[in-house]
Amino acid sequence: MINMKKYRLALVGATGVVGRVTRNVLEKYNLPISEYKFFSSSRSAGTKIVFNNEEYTVEELNEHSFDNGFDYAIFTAGGKVSEKYAPIAVQNKCTVIDNSSFYRMDKEVPLVVPEVNMEDAERNNGIIANPNCSTIQAVVALSPLDRKYRIKRIVYSTYQAVSGAGLGGIQDLESAIENYVANTKYELKKFPYDIFNNCIPHIDDFTDDRYTKEEHKMIDETRKILKRSNLPITATTVRVPVFNSHSESINVEFEKEFEINDLIETLKEAPGVIVKDDISNNIYPMPKDANNQDKVLVGRIRRDYSVKSGVNLWVVADNTRKGAGGNAVQILNGLIKYINKN
Amino acid sequence: MINMKKYRLALVGATGVVGRVTRNVLEKYNLPISEYKFFSSSRSAGTKIVFNNEEYTVEELNEHSFDNGFDYAIFTAGGKVSEKYAPIAVQNKCTVIDNSSFYRMDKEVPLVVPEVNMEDAERNNGIIANPNCSTIQAVVALSPLDRKYRIKRIVYSTYQAVSGAGLGGIQDLESAIENYVANTKYELKKFPYDIFNNCIPHIDDFTDDRYTKEEHKMIDETRKILKRSNLPITATTVRVPVFNSHSESINVEFEKEFEINDLIETLKEAPGVIVKDDISNNIYPMPKDANNQDKVLVGRIRRDYSVKSGVNLWVVADNTRKGAGGNAVQILNGLIKYINKN
Repeated sequence: MINMKKYRLALVGATGVVGRVTRNVLEKYNLPISEYKFFSSSRSAGTKIVFNNEEYTVEELNEHSFDNGFDYAIFTAGGKVSEKYAPIAVQNKCTVIDNSSFYRMDKEVPLVVPEVNMEDAERNNGIIANPNCSTIQAVVALSPLDRKYRIKRIVYSTYQAVSGAGLGGIQDLESAIENYVANTKYELKKFPYDIFNNCIPHIDDFTDDRYTKEEHKMIDETRKILKRSNLPITATTVRVPVFNSHSESINVEFEKEFEINDLIETLKEAPGVIVKDDISNNIYPMPKDANNQDKVLVGRIRRDYSVKSGVNLWVVADNTRKGAGGNAVQILNGLIKYINKN
Repeated sequence: MINMKKYRLALVGATGVVGRVTRNVLEKYNLPISEYKFFSSSRSAGTKIVFNNEEYTVEELNEHSFDNGFDYAIFTAGGKVSEKYAPIAVQNKCTVIDNSSFYRMDKEVPLVVPEVNMEDAERNNGIIANPNCSTIQAVVALSPLDRKYRIKRIVYSTYQAVSGAGLGGIQDLESAIENYVANTKYELKKFPYDIFNNCIPHIDDFTDDRYTKEEHKMIDETRKILKRSNLPITATTVRVPVFNSHSESINVEFEKEFEINDLIETLKEAPGVIVKDDISNNIYPMPKDANNQDKVLVGRIRRDYSVKSGVNLWVVADNTRKGAGGNAVQILNGLIKYINKN
């Protein structure tokens, strides 16, 4: 590894919630990167940030940002920025790991959760998509079960944190809490209704079939990542007043029979999973314990007696880390390892 | 109705969260009651309360409390109080509407949600059980669908408010919010973990099969109320940081086919249901809109494409009103009407 090539990395959307988390994760990984560059919209350009104990100035992204030969870019600035600038990056021989939803369902673009299908990332045409946060944590838990027992059907109900809606979402909950105590006024920045002291069954836009785009993402992306294009899945996605880390109640039916202790062992051995399931000691996953890590916490594992071969799972993970920035850096790490191996 | 008989009513557990709600609901109903009496444990005895603009002193419940001939009693002081004192009340020819779980699964005791099975209450042996809060709101929505399409299987995931855990639960969330803003210390009174900024997948005690008692209540009580003793049902019950009103993500499979607009119409015509489902205007049920009423709000109604005949529902109701005190007073009202009719 002494002569391992060093790479140049661009982070697009460096000042947003996920951009910040991505920077933190990059600092933790010891990647062979010789140069980092941080981009944002004009609004945040000029922001000074400290990264690896050095000060950087965030630059405005433009058509020429990729002229100078980046090897990799992580995009985390939303679908419109990715749509416009990811192809420019690719034209300049930069491999893009895109956190937006824009390219996820593109047949030419691998959709990757490293614990599940890192091999798909290795066969890319320049863009690798990072899945939706809710999907990532679900498939980390479901993929080993699908391989062993073959999933027949999934019913998702989510309990999603406000950080999934970016800074505006966090500010809405913050403001409401302050208002509740001080009785001051505030304006909602992100959500259609107050999320404090409330649950909002509406994430992303509604579609013609009465589902939300978030629900469709969970259904479509789970199928693509598990390579089960017709897998029966349904989803109800809900925002809850939690700052960070998504929770999911997942009901799964299998084709094959299982023994519950085998299933728990399978999860314990699964990459990226921590089984927290010791109910006699009140041990189960909770958002407050999931923050700042890339592990997916799985608990409340129990047979669903309403079907022949079914299980209920409660799955919690940091939606900005494993659900976004952490997964993207894991992909980058995997790509670099792969390239140096081949 | 001029000569309608007047009745004497005892409220046991008058100072708790549900006791307070029950008093509020009793004030709103114009019931033919000539005398009210309010009982509590020794701890709260002596408390002065205002009811129908009159001051009452809450009395300590004891073995002789029912000697003086009450016609009806509403018990809302937990299983142990009901276990001991409900039979004493019945011996004294008092009909008990019991809000605790103690008698719910007793074959001799009807378990009643007036919109669904008021006729069961009319054939009682002295005790009528009020179901679990989560079950009540679910069956108000499910019963008309079961009658029309015959339910094949139910998957429940709940988002339950802290008021379901009584005053201690409310205080835990209150204290945590104040602590968050002021950075002061506080002690948890009710929950095993902080519920603020968290979701706790644990309501009531755990059982040997890895479910909680709350989950068993939803399964067993739904079957009893719908008179579908073997209906396949599973449940995951979760506490969320909401003060009042429970939300539920309900996935239902039917034996018969349905047309989605017919199903929505069926719900619109169902007693006790308000359909809030106009997604183009961001209209859907939320806990913040469900408080202080006995209606069950149903929305996000959409076909589940993962099964032959399935639907997803999002069901929200005030767990202390319709889920407890309101349902109890509705039962009382129904009983009085029935007796005066016969």
